[in-house]
Amino acid sequence: MQYPEPIAKLIASYMKLPGIGEKTATRLAFYTLGMDEDDVKDFASALTAVKSDLHYCSICGNITEDDPCPICQDKSRDQSKIIVVEHSRDVMAMERMNEYHGLYHVLHGTISPSAGTGPMDINVPSLLERLKKHDEVKEVIIATNASVDGETTAQYLAKLIKPAGIKVTRLAHGLSAGADIDYTDEVTLFKAVEGRTEM
Amino acid sequence: MQYPEPIAKLIASYMKLPGIGEKTATRLAFYTLGMDEDDVKDFASALTAVKSDLHYCSICGNITEDDPCPICQDKSRDQSKIIVVEHSRDVMAMERMNEYHGLYHVLHGTISPSAGTGPMDINVPSLLERLKKHDEVKEVIIATNASVDGETTAQYLAKLIKPAGIKVTRLAHGLSAGADIDYTDEVTLFKAVEGRTEM
Repeated sequence: MQYPEPIAKLIASYMKLPGIGEKTATRLAFYTLGMDEDDVKDFASALTAVKSDLHYCSICGNITEDDPCPICQDKSRDQSKIIVVEHSRDVMAMERMNEYHGLYHVLHGTISPSAGTGPMDINVPSLLERLKKHDEVKEVIIATNASVDGETTAQYLAKLIKPAGIKVTRLAHGLSAGADIDYTDEVTLFKAVEGRTEM
Repeated sequence: MQYPEPIAKLIASYMKLPGIGEKTATRLAFYTLGMDEDDVKDFASALTAVKSDLHYCSICGNITEDDPCPICQDKSRDQSKIIVVEHSRDVMAMERMNEYHGLYHVLHGTISPSAGTGPMDINVPSLLERLKKHDEVKEVIIATNASVDGETTAQYLAKLIKPAGIKVTRLAHGLSAGADIDYTDEVTLFKAVEGRTEM
């Protein structure tokens, strides 16, 4: 006997999420069956809304409902600094420390020779163009993860940007080796920003 | 800075699922953002469908699209045996072993003095009524979980049903202590059904 089709379909959908196997997906599906109807409706509409209402900011590449995003629109922020991160969730991590008031640029990945990802596959061209257009930018702070690919990307960006006379710094090695930006606590992140070194 | 509202709402929805905290919910929400649009749409419609298209069978209490459910409708199944389980997913576990061809009754819980759940709060009245109406039932096999509440429920049901002259059996203690029916492998389940003992 198969599961009734609606349950089977929901199990299949849960299994498409990372780290969720068949057993967990089945548990979640049966749990959903017993959930409050409004909660399930909210869940369903949140899923579709996340795809339809969110876009990438045409300036910094961060996810946003409006374009440009609230950070790029905010002229009270320090326009002379840009922190370059791998992912949108890294922007959220930086903002949580509440100590940085400059701008961001989201790469959506890293340069990765092993995965065959080059600078043209991530948001590098838009960063260079942005630096060319806005000569008020005095410092680019590279905040890629402390992984091999993150390091490669940092070195590559420094080599490209420094000749234009822009200061390029990177986060201090307060970050432990292999650490992910968005799993780092606020204090460590703040120390890493404070202790940034010129490249 | 807050997450954009669509992301924040989706994180909140994921957090309503069991065993999913804020970190995991955030990961899942960002993962969803990068998922194929059709997959997300299927996910959303599977969620609403599971609430709108599934009902409880008016005979056995199992979840089903049609009423009565396919098992209750199937006259080729052995009408003389009823396996009583706690949850719908236990029916699926029993069916997976492919060795039992009788009927089921789903209690949707257990008698639990500690949680204040009595026999009237679960599908016990409908079981008794069913046994009264269908005198072709010769055996009730109690397959509640091997937990304190499962044991309490089994003892209670045996005391109620045996006076009516119906054989009451329960699964053999092939089940390990505290085990959940739906996490048990097919072979163990089959041994437990074969070695069932009269109460």
